[in-house]
Amino acid sequence: MGKTDLSRLADLAVAVGANVQEGQVVGVVAEYGQEEFARAIAESAYKRGAKFVDVWYFDPLVKRARIEFAPEDSLDYVPPWFGERLLKLGELGGANIAIRGMMMLPRIAETNVIVNERTVNWTVVPYPTPPWARTCFPDLDDEAALTRLWSEVQHVCRLDEPDPYEAWQDRIEALERAAAALTEAKLDAVHFEGEGTDLTIGLLPTSTWRMARWSTAGGIKHIPNVPTEEVFTSPDPERVDGYVRSTKPLVLSDGTVVRGLGVGFEGGRAVEVTADEGGEVLEVRTQIDPGACRLGEVALVDRESRIGQLGTVFYETLLDENAASHIAFGSGFRWAVETDDDRARVNKSAVHIDFMIGGDDVSVTGLTSDGERVPLLRDGVWQIAAVTA
Amino acid sequence: MGKTDLSRLADLAVAVGANVQEGQVVGVVAEYGQEEFARAIAESAYKRGAKFVDVWYFDPLVKRARIEFAPEDSLDYVPPWFGERLLKLGELGGANIAIRGMMMLPRIAETNVIVNERTVNWTVVPYPTPPWARTCFPDLDDEAALTRLWSEVQHVCRLDEPDPYEAWQDRIEALERAAAALTEAKLDAVHFEGEGTDLTIGLLPTSTWRMARWSTAGGIKHIPNVPTEEVFTSPDPERVDGYVRSTKPLVLSDGTVVRGLGVGFEGGRAVEVTADEGGEVLEVRTQIDPGACRLGEVALVDRESRIGQLGTVFYETLLDENAASHIAFGSGFRWAVETDDDRARVNKSAVHIDFMIGGDDVSVTGLTSDGERVPLLRDGVWQIAAVTA
Repeated sequence: MGKTDLSRLADLAVAVGANVQEGQVVGVVAEYGQEEFARAIAESAYKRGAKFVDVWYFDPLVKRARIEFAPEDSLDYVPPWFGERLLKLGELGGANIAIRGMMMLPRIAETNVIVNERTVNWTVVPYPTPPWARTCFPDLDDEAALTRLWSEVQHVCRLDEPDPYEAWQDRIEALERAAAALTEAKLDAVHFEGEGTDLTIGLLPTSTWRMARWSTAGGIKHIPNVPTEEVFTSPDPERVDGYVRSTKPLVLSDGTVVRGLGVGFEGGRAVEVTADEGGEVLEVRTQIDPGACRLGEVALVDRESRIGQLGTVFYETLLDENAASHIAFGSGFRWAVETDDDRARVNKSAVHIDFMIGGDDVSVTGLTSDGERVPLLRDGVWQIAAVTA
Repeated sequence: MGKTDLSRLADLAVAVGANVQEGQVVGVVAEYGQEEFARAIAESAYKRGAKFVDVWYFDPLVKRARIEFAPEDSLDYVPPWFGERLLKLGELGGANIAIRGMMMLPRIAETNVIVNERTVNWTVVPYPTPPWARTCFPDLDDEAALTRLWSEVQHVCRLDEPDPYEAWQDRIEALERAAAALTEAKLDAVHFEGEGTDLTIGLLPTSTWRMARWSTAGGIKHIPNVPTEEVFTSPDPERVDGYVRSTKPLVLSDGTVVRGLGVGFEGGRAVEVTADEGGEVLEVRTQIDPGACRLGEVALVDRESRIGQLGTVFYETLLDENAASHIAFGSGFRWAVETDDDRARVNKSAVHIDFMIGGDDVSVTGLTSDGERVPLLRDGVWQIAAVTA
């Protein structure tokens, strides 16, 4: 990947993802070894008028020394300045760009504060690395795998378009129109139909369809995950009935791959979980707490999704969940409904496990409370006038 | 340099320099590219019982992007968390280890707070890098230069001793005895004599001789600069008379090398500055403010100094100033005198420029207010009973 490739990916993070504004202080979170991309992000942000770019390099090998030699009962400790940095970034109205895939980064509680207070325009972006490439393409040699991953990441990030920035504005506006039209349709339920799938997911009275462009309290629009292809909401966790087959492998956070997954629902609960492979691990996870076997999310993805077109499994939820329409066991989004009553009903759980159930062969239909059937996706294409217009 | 070499240098930083205590949080400041040493320091600190080691990597190439692309009037800006991190480290009673030679690190005002409040046991340690090696040994090829620098740094750090930790305890105790004996002698002046040198430096009534082992407010002893070989104090800036020849090249902060320096003093002021090379640059610096042509420091170094034995110019003040007895134009140390009256008299200036005036051929004699002459160094050897005992 030449300097141009890196610069274009960095520009995507800065201009499309975080939408860095002139005069902003920008935090960058990178893993040690990702310096080329971090520097490209810094350069891009400065060119866009950033006041200061602070790259925080997290070194997994320092953490490894900790795990090996520090007292076991100290391993939860996080020094106060990790969180202070985020809170100050919020106070300054700064931006934040995290490079995807840092498994060993400690959990910083203050992250929730800046996300909830919407003080920072932030994003998480992918960056192809040799270990990630080996995971995705184990049959290729290292160099070929990295080249392939770069090329696919560039494609799914629309960097092969003449003007990626414009391409994203168009795509995001289409997703926003789809979300608005779905919300306006005041659907009572969504019905998925296909081979091995006949599933009806009830919605809450004020379930509102969202897409992944957010806005800070001060009005700066940003995209928390680039690339994004979905519109989604939180359903009624007590009204899911029927059965569904997953259309793509599901990769759990411990690396377990669940293939050939089939789930039967009754009254919102998953009552039957079968799989060709990895089913037992998933079954344990869905029994962690009472909400783990109910749904927190339903998301629609059309065939314009480049992730879905490729068919690659990236072993990285934030990319893979944009491949196809999906549902998630576990925690839902309280900000995706409008009343306290509905917020109390949104599913709660310690887990959130997305799995893909959509595809060109699965039709998606909205059901209104009058019993009217509204086609949403056919052959993977939006059927909503506002979107196709 | 193998892992053992790195580990021994890291142990020196952790055990001798910072003297990391069990349960301490440890800050490490490293430049991007110094990860091997930073990780070795982390491992050493964890093995010694540190609770958490936070390596802060500063990336000069991110800074370069800033200098190139950020608005000129923003270049003074430092985000608040750079200083917060240090203040919090102080509140936690932590330790700090900085790797020497980071020219591009921004000036963080809060550094002064933790130094003055003595809340942190801190140190700065050398680490051989290819650019530094090229500067020291321009006639060698890159690999040979680095090998040579490693070998010399190991030697001056006493890492070639069977037990470097013990070797340093012995050396430091000898320096402490020398400092105590010098202070007890209540000298009125120090007299340097040698070829081209006949200089008398008056002391203040409470000038106290120090060596570079400090103590935190909580009593943790630490050595701010490793290796250290000097005992020093601040003299009377109005009572310096005679002339002196430098015994080693003087490297100014802009890289100018001053060779063959000769200075004549009258009533504390440098009235004549001559040099074979670089004299003009030095002369400008000594005219920056009224204190810049007067002395802020006089330091004694005996021939046990391994830096002096080698004869190498490291182009790095903190090493080079430990080569030989020296004096410094400019700012003095208010904490090296005992009364408010004397503190008001300690020299003040924006500069502090050390230059070497000692060696085996230069004898150093103390003068008491009774006119008694007390031999201090002859042929580079301490003449004080407490030290030689």
